[in-house]
Amino acid sequence: AFAPTRKPGNDKRTVKVRAESINPEIRKSEEKVVDSVDLTQLSKPITPYCRCWRSKTFPLCDGSHVKHNKATGDNVGPLLLKKQ
Amino acid sequence: AFAPTRKPGNDKRTVKVRAESINPEIRKSEEKVVDSVDLTQLSKPITPYCRCWRSKTFPLCDGSHVKHNKATGDNVGPLLLKKQ
Ligand code: FES
Ligand code: FES
Repeated sequence: AFAPTRKPGNDKRTVKVRAESINPEIRKSEEKVVDSVDLTQLSKPITPYCRCWRSKTFPLCDGSHVKHNKATGDNVGPLLLKKQ
Repeated sequence: AFAPTRKPGNDKRTVKVRAESINPEIRKSEEKVVDSVDLTQLSKPITPYCRCWRSKTFPLCDGSHVKHNKATGDNVGPLLLKKQ
């Protein structure tokens, strides 16, 4: 009788995980949201920049990461630019 | 016959949207991932910082946002710090 060969490396189950978008709303008309900061223009000693994609003042952080973390169990936070 | 009263404001359907974590892997032992950049220490004219939470060199951008965007239809990209 004929039995189909199977390579050991192909003999494992695969689980498909659907990858998710992380930015639901910000500037969705842009193909890629990239921002530039001219460091000579920063006025405050510390300026927080958003990495949670929930800020109403994006690219700046407005504290919205707190609500996002609480709602999802996530642990994201801003990038702090320090003049000195 | 008795009919239960219903306030107009309660008469709409609700759709539950499950909020999703955006950081699956980076420093999950930390309650909140915050990074500081001492701007005086930047050496290159432009330094890209990750906002997609997929970089292997986080907090720096390593280009992983491209794969993430392709896989999910997202449009996220880095924050570019420009010395001048
Ligand atoms: S609001 Fe997005 S990191 Fe603070
Ligand atoms: S690798 Fe995350 S923004 Fe580029």
